[in-house]
Amino acid sequence: MQEPITTDIAIIGAGPVGLFAVFEAGLLKMRCHVMDALPQIGGQLSEIYPRKPIYDIPGFPEVLAQDLIDNLHQQIEPFKPTFTLGERVETVEKQADGSFIVGTNEGTTVHAKAICIAGGLGSFEPRKPPLENLEAYEGKGVSYMVKDPDKFKGKKVVIAGGGDSALDWCMYLADVAESLTLVHRNAGFRGAPDSAEKVEKLAAEGKIELLINTNVTALHGEGALSAIEVTNKDKETRTLECDDFIPLFGLSPKLGPIGDWDLGLDKNQVEVDTEKFQTTTEGIFAIGDINTYPGKLKLILSGFHESALMAHAAFKYMNPGVKVNLKYTTVNGVGGF
Amino acid sequence: MQEPITTDIAIIGAGPVGLFAVFEAGLLKMRCHVMDALPQIGGQLSEIYPRKPIYDIPGFPEVLAQDLIDNLHQQIEPFKPTFTLGERVETVEKQADGSFIVGTNEGTTVHAKAICIAGGLGSFEPRKPPLENLEAYEGKGVSYMVKDPDKFKGKKVVIAGGGDSALDWCMYLADVAESLTLVHRNAGFRGAPDSAEKVEKLAAEGKIELLINTNVTALHGEGALSAIEVTNKDKETRTLECDDFIPLFGLSPKLGPIGDWDLGLDKNQVEVDTEKFQTTTEGIFAIGDINTYPGKLKLILSGFHESALMAHAAFKYMNPGVKVNLKYTTVNGVGGF
Repeated sequence: MQEPITTDIAIIGAGPVGLFAVFEAGLLKMRCHVMDALPQIGGQLSEIYPRKPIYDIPGFPEVLAQDLIDNLHQQIEPFKPTFTLGERVETVEKQADGSFIVGTNEGTTVHAKAICIAGGLGSFEPRKPPLENLEAYEGKGVSYMVKDPDKFKGKKVVIAGGGDSALDWCMYLADVAESLTLVHRNAGFRGAPDSAEKVEKLAAEGKIELLINTNVTALHGEGALSAIEVTNKDKETRTLECDDFIPLFGLSPKLGPIGDWDLGLDKNQVEVDTEKFQTTTEGIFAIGDINTYPGKLKLILSGFHESALMAHAAFKYMNPGVKVNLKYTTVNGVGGF
Repeated sequence: MQEPITTDIAIIGAGPVGLFAVFEAGLLKMRCHVMDALPQIGGQLSEIYPRKPIYDIPGFPEVLAQDLIDNLHQQIEPFKPTFTLGERVETVEKQADGSFIVGTNEGTTVHAKAICIAGGLGSFEPRKPPLENLEAYEGKGVSYMVKDPDKFKGKKVVIAGGGDSALDWCMYLADVAESLTLVHRNAGFRGAPDSAEKVEKLAAEGKIELLINTNVTALHGEGALSAIEVTNKDKETRTLECDDFIPLFGLSPKLGPIGDWDLGLDKNQVEVDTEKFQTTTEGIFAIGDINTYPGKLKLILSGFHESALMAHAAFKYMNPGVKVNLKYTTVNGVGGF
């Protein structure tokens, strides 16, 4: 077993609020280790809508989601946070001395004096179509995200879905894949009308095959996927050669193992007080969209405020009896480590 | 008497938090009228430290105070706030229907459905030296701020003080005034060492007169100031010709008439709950540095969060029984008026 990583605060969730918590902790000279199931920082902002503009961050009349994350990353840099990304936190065990051991699905362990859950809506998991053997083909022809488009070069690809992701990847992969089929259960698309029009034009030009009012109904292949079966609303069934099947039915938030911890969870939300933002377990704090309290608004800016008060409370938890001095950061800047 | 200005929320205080409250109110389709005793928006940030960098605004690794104000001004522009600046709010009277009439020292009246006090530390007033007749010479040779440096062209100017303001204006006015004397009660300066060195060099070169360990002890002149008396620590007294005397002993926050309203004031702070940020008077809210609650940190970012929850509470106050829908501002932007 590896030596545990040691830190002051283990922050679970690398979205904007988890990142800014590093800054507020750093001002009080606490080091942070940030953990996220996603392979990169930024949470939903980087994973789901990096190029979308946000208008309600104070001081930014408009900012792209990924630019906000990049700014926050730069802002916390003086405090040298460390990261465990692409691993899911599975266990949190409180020690006799009040500290915690955090464990991930990959066997990484972190020893922290306090825990800050900045878990947003939980981790996002793809919505899966109800198909027999679906999971057996995962990584063997079935994938739920397009991480590396080049992987599909020269492949027979089938995308299923009618939203923006399905339309966007359909347009993109039309030029990459050997053949591309878009299967959609209805006739109309939920995605942007402009995108739908472009996809219909690609189909009219014979560059892709568009099957509307159709569902994927079976997967075939020895070891790896080689064909899929589709059925239209008239119950007609066809079999298509297929190397890669990409169902894009959106992402569904899942709280994951956090849901099993003793935190005072109510409807997948953690009830906290508004002084410390602490859960029912002393030393475990919860900030951002995952928490709730009277008046709570699920705004990034509220999570920023919560991170500041959490940091002061965590400082007191790990330094009982020591007075916190709130220093302003003007003129001389932040100290860093 | 002028017709009252009508609005949804009268915001008292045009600092960063008062300005951002316009945005949060605007998202809920409430219009705001912003009032401040200072002649411009921005509060302390614009009045006291416009060129100082701030490091703890989320998403800004570094931002100049005035730039933050300019950004906020641009951000609230779609919601067309109106302003009464350079007037001090003196009275707030609750009406039978739950609305309020706000009155200023200049006779302006505002009729608002709710009040939001974003008063920071109160208005800033200059610390005045204990000199007989000082107030009689105000505007007739005595001033506490340098608003228009050109006013001192060809004048015999005496500055008193040992901080950054005194040093900075001493350096600046050395080239403008006919003669300049800096009077400081001690030998060492509180201001930046670099500035103190420059001022001492100006004195060594005979460009200014520097009187250390000296106090201004009397003011003379018929109608307007024409001379001042200074006394050093050896009790030696001299009289200097003087057209303009500028005591720069810093600014002291004064809560002003707000201190007399029925708001639940405790040590010049307004106690509020953390759901609505409401004072003891229903319909009057208090956000930013003027309020207090368990865990309160006097951070601009906390005021931003408070403004969002206040806006929702104010909406409910003026629209009883109507459900608020929290809309996110991504992609389609803010609606504005």
